[in-house]
Amino acid sequence: MILETAVFTIHAGQAEQFLEAFARGRKFIEQSKGCHRLELRRGIEEPDTFVLVVWWQTLEDHTVTFKQSSNFTDWRAVVGHFFARPPVVHHYLEEA
Amino acid sequence: MILETAVFTIHAGQAEQFLEAFARGRKFIEQSKGCHRLELRRGIEEPDTFVLVVWWQTLEDHTVTFKQSSNFTDWRAVVGHFFARPPVVHHYLEEA
Repeated sequence: MILETAVFTIHAGQAEQFLEAFARGRKFIEQSKGCHRLELRRGIEEPDTFVLVVWWQTLEDHTVTFKQSSNFTDWRAVVGHFFARPPVVHHYLEEA
Repeated sequence: MILETAVFTIHAGQAEQFLEAFARGRKFIEQSKGCHRLELRRGIEEPDTFVLVVWWQTLEDHTVTFKQSSNFTDWRAVVGHFFARPPVVHHYLEEA
């Protein structure tokens, strides 16, 4: 299982609305092939940021299957307008 | 429970040695008060980076109790010389 970290910077003052949208949109990630689980958490040092951590079966489950699916389009339609800049995404190998 | 993410950039070519050192040093974090669990994973896009994700009971368990303890000194003595630059550390609130 690989790990994705995505850091979102949200337009100032919109965190509560973003959380409501995320609650509606998370299913588009969770129901995607290879998604084991996810955690979304708000930044302590930078309250306009959130980290989304997703455990995927394979890298391609995220970068190919999800990204090319209607789940991705639907997810971005729900949350994309909250992003003040493009998400910062990294992937990490199996646990050491 | 809060989340810590720490991104380590390791001197080029030392990833295997770092992993061996980490295996010896992880107990200093794991045995610290309030540490629930941790994951260390190597970067896919940037193989000289690693992310350490730690689930702590409280922020202070990391920033005060651990940082002021001999566990922190012992941890850094084992792994610190592998770091090509200071770790990039963020903390995140309870899961949304």
